[in-house]
Amino acid sequence: MPKINAERLLSNLRRFAQFGAYKTGVHRPTYSREDMDSRRWLAQQYEAVGLQAHIDGVGNVFGTPRSDRRSLLIGSHAESQNYAGWLDGALGVIYGLEIARTFAETPDCAGLPIAPVAWADEEGHYVSMLGSRSFIGDIDEAEIDRAVNVDHGLTLREALRGAGLAGVPRSLLEPERYVGYLEAHIEQGDALEASSKRIGVVTSIVGIWQYSIVFHGIQNHAGTTRMAIRKDAGVAAAMLAMAIARRFPQVAGPRSVWTTGRISLEPGAPSIIPGKAEMLFQFRDSEMSVLQQLDAVLRELVEETAITTGCSAEIEQTETGKPCHMDPAFQNAIENAAARHAHDAYVRMPSGAGHDAQVVARKLRSAMLFIPSIGGISHHWTENTDDADLVLGCQVLADSAETILRDEEPPGLSG
Amino acid sequence: MPKINAERLLSNLRRFAQFGAYKTGVHRPTYSREDMDSRRWLAQQYEAVGLQAHIDGVGNVFGTPRSDRRSLLIGSHAESQNYAGWLDGALGVIYGLEIARTFAETPDCAGLPIAPVAWADEEGHYVSMLGSRSFIGDIDEAEIDRAVNVDHGLTLREALRGAGLAGVPRSLLEPERYVGYLEAHIEQGDALEASSKRIGVVTSIVGIWQYSIVFHGIQNHAGTTRMAIRKDAGVAAAMLAMAIARRFPQVAGPRSVWTTGRISLEPGAPSIIPGKAEMLFQFRDSEMSVLQQLDAVLRELVEETAITTGCSAEIEQTETGKPCHMDPAFQNAIENAAARHAHDAYVRMPSGAGHDAQVVARKLRSAMLFIPSIGGISHHWTENTDDADLVLGCQVLADSAETILRDEEPPGLSG
Repeated sequence: MPKINAERLLSNLRRFAQFGAYKTGVHRPTYSREDMDSRRWLAQQYEAVGLQAHIDGVGNVFGTPRSDRRSLLIGSHAESQNYAGWLDGALGVIYGLEIARTFAETPDCAGLPIAPVAWADEEGHYVSMLGSRSFIGDIDEAEIDRAVNVDHGLTLREALRGAGLAGVPRSLLEPERYVGYLEAHIEQGDALEASSKRIGVVTSIVGIWQYSIVFHGIQNHAGTTRMAIRKDAGVAAAMLAMAIARRFPQVAGPRSVWTTGRISLEPGAPSIIPGKAEMLFQFRDSEMSVLQQLDAVLRELVEETAITTGCSAEIEQTETGKPCHMDPAFQNAIENAAARHAHDAYVRMPSGAGHDAQVVARKLRSAMLFIPSIGGISHHWTENTDDADLVLGCQVLADSAETILRDEEPPGLSG
Repeated sequence: MPKINAERLLSNLRRFAQFGAYKTGVHRPTYSREDMDSRRWLAQQYEAVGLQAHIDGVGNVFGTPRSDRRSLLIGSHAESQNYAGWLDGALGVIYGLEIARTFAETPDCAGLPIAPVAWADEEGHYVSMLGSRSFIGDIDEAEIDRAVNVDHGLTLREALRGAGLAGVPRSLLEPERYVGYLEAHIEQGDALEASSKRIGVVTSIVGIWQYSIVFHGIQNHAGTTRMAIRKDAGVAAAMLAMAIARRFPQVAGPRSVWTTGRISLEPGAPSIIPGKAEMLFQFRDSEMSVLQQLDAVLRELVEETAITTGCSAEIEQTETGKPCHMDPAFQNAIENAAARHAHDAYVRMPSGAGHDAQVVARKLRSAMLFIPSIGGISHHWTENTDDADLVLGCQVLADSAETILRDEEPPGLSG
């Protein structure tokens, strides 16, 4: 059995968190200097394990085994959200590295090829899940041409040039070379912690439906315009947010979530009635029928709000992810490994967050493993996980990888 | 009687709108190149009328009559809101210039000294009513040291240096040199238009009470955090906005107005539950008792919202303007002139907007005249007024100025 090196794992996780260190977390936006430094460091580590390392045209880092056999991809994304946690993404990336090294060092496993990978821009600084989408051939040059940074407006092309990736080819998946894909991630919620579980075996990944909703009112002077004749786009936005808070619980599924992440009023001055309000709104569920129901209710509420406030409204759906189910045999492999190392402290659960695994799953058998987030905190620099859970998760994933690769071994070669 | 030159008035208004022209309006923020160009142009015009012109240390432009007699200040502010109307401020400034010139050219009026003035930053790009407050001695160097631009964060000191005003002294009011202050302004609302009036005789200027309200929730992942455990600061902000919309009409006066001009959610990303929400909120009324009542209700609603949402709340009052009453004799002078030129198309009314006149009124007898805004539109580049009303307003103000100055003439010199 592959036995991971706990000390080395923790040490590499902490080393990786130095790239863009911010308080107890990291600020490592995609293609920033810190992000590219971290990717080059990874490539060196892959080489040191005896893999052939390369960084492709969107920044994905691959460690390719020097083997004719089909390998198992293991990884996650290397960049972080802004001023966010040290484990979100990095965990799965360093697990991939540690498992590749453990297998290389374990005589019994040396013939089982592990291909660690670090995807680019899962967090969507430019394009959500850019790296994994590029890998499965789901993005074209035109989309790359159009993309800009959501925070500062730099184009993706400029960012790639600045990162030294202009002209570097993007690596495309050759499905016959891989057995499948495993990704470990922190849970980013409190379900594991609240039920005293240490390993989550992910059954499915929710679909995320996202919207830009714009209300147009009449911009006017906030002192001289009588209340009776106002068409205040900001009031419309607040009214819609409250209507959603009232109606969604009546039609949502038990695990549905919805969020207004941004409200922008224009022009945004204290003495001017907002003439325009824009909301970024999203909801998530693992059932397609629930997503469709929430979509219908949202459109109804937007229309009602427009009528009530006298504002005009536009609603544009900007993301329509389908719920995605994980490979059953891979789930079993993870569950069996969890049972071995964590006794009964594991549970099957859906993922409320989107992950690269949902993209890769469109082309390869895929599965995910979660470990707990302390206090359920994520997307914040205080995000953290107990060292014991960090180590346990990696060992469970290593065991799962062994099971999956042995099941793939040509007949007659298996132990 | 002074007879203004209608063609010259309109031509100068249009010339002035070329400084920072934007669509059919202007973009002339305080101390921008366009703003300073317009101030230097004004100083030249003042000189051409035979006045002694100077620009003081905060950009106020004064045209001082070469006369021993007490003069009448007439003006308004020269800068604009961002991408806003061509008449807001500029109207009163160009009226002052036209009336000074008319009086100089009218033999019967040549001895009645008009002192045109153009204040700086009434619009508060740095400090609301900076110029008039500086003139009456209501601002100290420490406040100037602290001030920064609300849009781009440049400090006021840097802006003054860039405008060539570093080290230039600020002119301080010597009250004994002036009879009083007149200011003309577009109404910026639709009360005149809706009642087919052409002149508003301002009775009082509302008090503006302004607040920064901050809710602190818990920033977390928008996919993995169950609805039941969320503390969403954005939901708190929307809830407060709706509570205000419900409760304020029950306690407001007939002319009270209230506005949420800005809502900022942090971090403002689609997949992150906002951990912080900031609202800029203000209300206005001409009665102190109403202002106090609205303040009490607002604080109640903020507290209720915090309790309901589990967020913590801070409320900071950033502006507490007192309602200000205009000089009764000056009001009569304007009303009589309006009756002469506009028959019954005038009305006494409070000002819902703040104006430099409320600052100057603390030290000098002051009054204001309004002309209609087409469609009530203001603080937007489509703001406009009929030419006939532009001309009428200036003639009424000229007549009012004559009456006020003749009432001040030493006994024995009056006609």
